[in-house]
Amino acid sequence: MQLLETTLAKIQPVDEALLAKAQAKLDNKTKPLGSLGRLEEVGRRFAAITGDLAPDTAKKVIFTFAGDHGIVEEGVSLFPKEVTPQMVLNFLRGGAGVNVLARHSGAEVRVVDVGVDYDFEPAPGLIIRKVAKGTRNFAKGSAMTREEAVAAIEVGIALADEAKKEGITMVGTGEMGIGNTSPSSAIIAAIAGCTVREVTHRGTGIGDEALEKKIKVIQAGLDLNRPEPQDPLDVLTKVGGLEIAGIAGLVLGAAANRIPVVVDGFISTAGALIASEMHPSVRDYIFTAHTSVEIGHQMMLERIGVKPLLDLQLRLGEGTGAALAMGLIEAGVKILKEMATFEEAGVASA
Amino acid sequence: MQLLETTLAKIQPVDEALLAKAQAKLDNKTKPLGSLGRLEEVGRRFAAITGDLAPDTAKKVIFTFAGDHGIVEEGVSLFPKEVTPQMVLNFLRGGAGVNVLARHSGAEVRVVDVGVDYDFEPAPGLIIRKVAKGTRNFAKGSAMTREEAVAAIEVGIALADEAKKEGITMVGTGEMGIGNTSPSSAIIAAIAGCTVREVTHRGTGIGDEALEKKIKVIQAGLDLNRPEPQDPLDVLTKVGGLEIAGIAGLVLGAAANRIPVVVDGFISTAGALIASEMHPSVRDYIFTAHTSVEIGHQMMLERIGVKPLLDLQLRLGEGTGAALAMGLIEAGVKILKEMATFEEAGVASA
Repeated sequence: MQLLETTLAKIQPVDEALLAKAQAKLDNKTKPLGSLGRLEEVGRRFAAITGDLAPDTAKKVIFTFAGDHGIVEEGVSLFPKEVTPQMVLNFLRGGAGVNVLARHSGAEVRVVDVGVDYDFEPAPGLIIRKVAKGTRNFAKGSAMTREEAVAAIEVGIALADEAKKEGITMVGTGEMGIGNTSPSSAIIAAIAGCTVREVTHRGTGIGDEALEKKIKVIQAGLDLNRPEPQDPLDVLTKVGGLEIAGIAGLVLGAAANRIPVVVDGFISTAGALIASEMHPSVRDYIFTAHTSVEIGHQMMLERIGVKPLLDLQLRLGEGTGAALAMGLIEAGVKILKEMATFEEAGVASA
Repeated sequence: MQLLETTLAKIQPVDEALLAKAQAKLDNKTKPLGSLGRLEEVGRRFAAITGDLAPDTAKKVIFTFAGDHGIVEEGVSLFPKEVTPQMVLNFLRGGAGVNVLARHSGAEVRVVDVGVDYDFEPAPGLIIRKVAKGTRNFAKGSAMTREEAVAAIEVGIALADEAKKEGITMVGTGEMGIGNTSPSSAIIAAIAGCTVREVTHRGTGIGDEALEKKIKVIQAGLDLNRPEPQDPLDVLTKVGGLEIAGIAGLVLGAAANRIPVVVDGFISTAGALIASEMHPSVRDYIFTAHTSVEIGHQMMLERIGVKPLLDLQLRLGEGTGAALAMGLIEAGVKILKEMATFEEAGVASA
């Protein structure tokens, strides 16, 4: 608990004066004022977060947190639970979607076993920090103990602290965990006080009947556990997931270390939501990658108060959207760093 | 005219069977069916356009067409006309927005002087194929002669033909021409039969009064020239621009040569609209990069029947959006080429 508390105490809002300075630099570039829209927003925010008007973006790492879910025994997913470790091995061999897209963006993928029900051999690219072998079925009791939830958050925080020391300039979140759209829906329903139906969708692609069952199972879990909406740690503990906790921790740790953090889709945003409910300034450090097909995502984004960069109808997770968004964010930073000013280019300004 | 006619005769619809084959390949990848959304759409279409299920994307070129506009003398732009050649020189030195973003995406920028009112010295990266030193003021007469419009289209076609021979795997469009949102608005108003007000916006950033004047000037030009909505070449000739004609030609030539073409924002889409009105199958070869802030863009996109990949509130032009979109399109192709199948990865499928 100590690492979580000291981390929360370290988080500061981003300096508005730095945002203005970065915008002033952008306003001298050879283009009509504001004409690069969200690229300018991204460049400006990246500069303000890092405190550097010519920030480095070279070292980009996506942390893909993996965990299993007891709720899978209720039949909420199309895929069997065994797919979680199988996909971890696919990540390590470089064959998954996130590997392809991270390579494309020049980012590294590190897989974090924070809660998979499988004993992995040590392997390059795999960080084994297992808190438990998956959560318990939250339709029948609390998914985790409060201690487990804190331990998983602190895994994420520690990774952000290590990233800072290593000189990583941008982190991304990703996840793998068969069944993990169910805890994500449960988290936003609990925190925002909306109905389960409003925030529950088809995950990997379940049909109408399975969707009805999924909604009932999540509702049963909320009715049984009664998570306290004002206490994000309680919500995470009772209906969350270990990988979601790890992501919440990475986001908190990134904010505390002033590292820009790119949040992937629905499940990652559930983690970012927990983090931003714990500390309001967390949102200053977040770039949300894309709008997920999962219908609960929009409500999470509104609650945090952020607008994703991309809308490509993705619903894969893993960090795939974060990998793509990292490329756009780096583009925005390059505008700030590399574009000529009117004076340098000898171009008449308006 | 002969090159335009033979090019139109060469354009074929994209083979639906190839689209299905590419999708079948995607459906074996380690991900839930369809879960990479528009990346899958992009990968599938790129494969079908090129006829290759593992298409090469390495050699990417953005052709930024530059031309001047007589309409500028009516005070429709915030910037003076001299900025057109000044920005061309900025492109050649690598300091403009499109240069930064093209470098980021691994694309080359080639600037095409199809109608700038300035005599450039030969320079690397500059292709001088000047048809005229700018258009005439379309508020007082036809912007071009029909022969000039065809000649400028054929400049674009010839560049696509040369690109094919050179082994260029993807082309992008861009433009520079102070005043060129006015002809773009005029083109969509003429073709779609909507009011000038519905499709006219602030360009580089004009105020309310100047916007009212711009609307009146465009309306006057349409009233005077009476372009024939059914004849896209007539519309282009009377109220268009030389760089818009060049873009129309590049799009036609890309379609004829089965090269995927990434269309930038408002002005580029005006060119793509002329091309797609000339031949309906052109749209099969187009990737629209982003949704422009210019309000007339949406109507162009609907008319062509395409949906952009990005919405980043851009309104710079030059090919900046195309440069970013090329990165996403390449990502989609890499999904098709590099992701492991369920069998290869030993992952259980649903």
